[in-house]
Amino acid sequence: MTTLEDIARALGTTKSTVSKALNGADDVSKATRQAVLEKAVEMGYTRRTRTKSAPRIAVFVTNMEYRKPSDFGHDIVMGFRKAAEPEGYEVTLIPLDIPLQQSDSYDTYMMKNHFCGGFFLGLTPLDPWLKEFETCKTPTVLYDNHVSGNPHISHVGIDNAEGMKIAVAYLRSLGHEKIGYLSNALESYVYHQRLLFFLQAMESCGLTPDKELTGSAYHVSDCLSQHLPRLLEKGCTAFVCSHDLLASNALVYCAELGLSVPEDVSILGFDDIPLCQHTVPPLSTIRQDRDLLGRSAFYAFTSQFNHVAVSTLLLHPQLVERNSCAPLSPQD
Amino acid sequence: MTTLEDIARALGTTKSTVSKALNGADDVSKATRQAVLEKAVEMGYTRRTRTKSAPRIAVFVTNMEYRKPSDFGHDIVMGFRKAAEPEGYEVTLIPLDIPLQQSDSYDTYMMKNHFCGGFFLGLTPLDPWLKEFETCKTPTVLYDNHVSGNPHISHVGIDNAEGMKIAVAYLRSLGHEKIGYLSNALESYVYHQRLLFFLQAMESCGLTPDKELTGSAYHVSDCLSQHLPRLLEKGCTAFVCSHDLLASNALVYCAELGLSVPEDVSILGFDDIPLCQHTVPPLSTIRQDRDLLGRSAFYAFTSQFNHVAVSTLLLHPQLVERNSCAPLSPQD
Repeated sequence: MTTLEDIARALGTTKSTVSKALNGADDVSKATRQAVLEKAVEMGYTRRTRTKSAPRIAVFVTNMEYRKPSDFGHDIVMGFRKAAEPEGYEVTLIPLDIPLQQSDSYDTYMMKNHFCGGFFLGLTPLDPWLKEFETCKTPTVLYDNHVSGNPHISHVGIDNAEGMKIAVAYLRSLGHEKIGYLSNALESYVYHQRLLFFLQAMESCGLTPDKELTGSAYHVSDCLSQHLPRLLEKGCTAFVCSHDLLASNALVYCAELGLSVPEDVSILGFDDIPLCQHTVPPLSTIRQDRDLLGRSAFYAFTSQFNHVAVSTLLLHPQLVERNSCAPLSPQD
Repeated sequence: MTTLEDIARALGTTKSTVSKALNGADDVSKATRQAVLEKAVEMGYTRRTRTKSAPRIAVFVTNMEYRKPSDFGHDIVMGFRKAAEPEGYEVTLIPLDIPLQQSDSYDTYMMKNHFCGGFFLGLTPLDPWLKEFETCKTPTVLYDNHVSGNPHISHVGIDNAEGMKIAVAYLRSLGHEKIGYLSNALESYVYHQRLLFFLQAMESCGLTPDKELTGSAYHVSDCLSQHLPRLLEKGCTAFVCSHDLLASNALVYCAELGLSVPEDVSILGFDDIPLCQHTVPPLSTIRQDRDLLGRSAFYAFTSQFNHVAVSTLLLHPQLVERNSCAPLSPQD
């Protein structure tokens, strides 16, 4: 475990200067402070080993709404806080943008701001810090993003393989065999995974996995206009959608085509966002319990803080049956 | 939450009879006791909600040695106990055989013996209880086995995908491009996974995944005699083995063929069993930290007990460099 003395020795300065620099005291120059912070980061010094006040965890949110109860990120953040705060952690919410990521390296930012851990919601491949996660030393938990090979990074999410298996098995139990798959753009880690798992689920449920019966696009409207009529023409009687927003728009699109859901075609979503209860018809979906996801992120941190390097922590998803799927009718 | 009253009502008996039956009192007939136990299981009653003494977790071990520090299972069991016992749990070790599994259904056995959770090491597809895990209600954690779709089952292990990526990237960094893969029989969940991940790792490291350069067999000696000479002939200069026992035998087999390890051929193991330090040469391998695996199983239980249904908890593996791998020599 790196100590203040170790850092002082490495820099040829005193323990007191290092301590003052780490704590942002006025009588240390900006240049010295930066040098101390960077050396501390380099040597793997972590706040948690030394701090006397409550340990602080930052929750970084980007590309995701979280302030209102109906926002996707709301329950994840609340679940995390409900698990972390009773254990004595101070949780700080930070909207993450590119300038913030360019202001400092990730480890330096965390050290400078006295955070012992960072939990990230909504990162994309465009975020500059993503690259740093391959080698960072700050305990870090990513929701729905996976970085391989760094013991300080954990990934939490739901078991998408299991979710797709539940989805396909459910539609199969209703008599559907030609099942189409509609997806968001595949650059995202989780959408890429879900497509693979959908095809695997078709196979493990005794149906024919067929890439021709899948379609993806970045914009929801493009995905529907490019693929939904095409897949209906190919004989699909049911669709699994990569996420609920796409599924809810598919309901509207089917209505515009004069098709009744679920009588003519079954639509199954994924995620169980708050909207699902209010669509017409209410959307059946695969639920990821966002409150529990937030809590599980805290379990990943406690494991890391106890030197158990968790790579991946996945939760069981559940089928939520509402009214957008029905048994295959005889005329189909 | 099911109560004693609920069970009594369902059976048309009294709360006191149910309580006595669950606690194995003498003045309740064997038939009544069995009826109460089975109804309690059926209704999802769990001991933990009622017990006054220390909650008990059973660790079932089969196909795995664990008594001596050099045994593979030893540190997993110790890690589990080190995490669970300080938290007030009583941990009972139970060698698992077929007659025990045939004596009662799993949930009934656990209820009868006052266990609030079961941790399983070494299960195979032949174990009768494996089928029951699809629907059981007892919180259960499996090491290196995966059962989909039951919120009461968690799977702990290392991240084999990451381990194979570390393995292939390491051999690639030494200049090896034709890398062979030797494996145990592929019926086992974990060996099946490792082969797939090896081929994926070849691809993601920019090498050519080639099923022809892999070989498996149930017996170590068959695997080596059937595949090692064949793969050497095909030009493999390095081998990843599915587990250390196979790798350590590959060292001996190479010596018998007159090949020096690592000068003529590099051999990389997987698991880091205690033996690796004592082979000639000492075996480089991918480490699964067994102490931490045991601890992580306890974290999976605490998550389940807190109603966070963990499907999968994987730990980061590490490369352990000893002396069985070397840079590709110019004559190769």
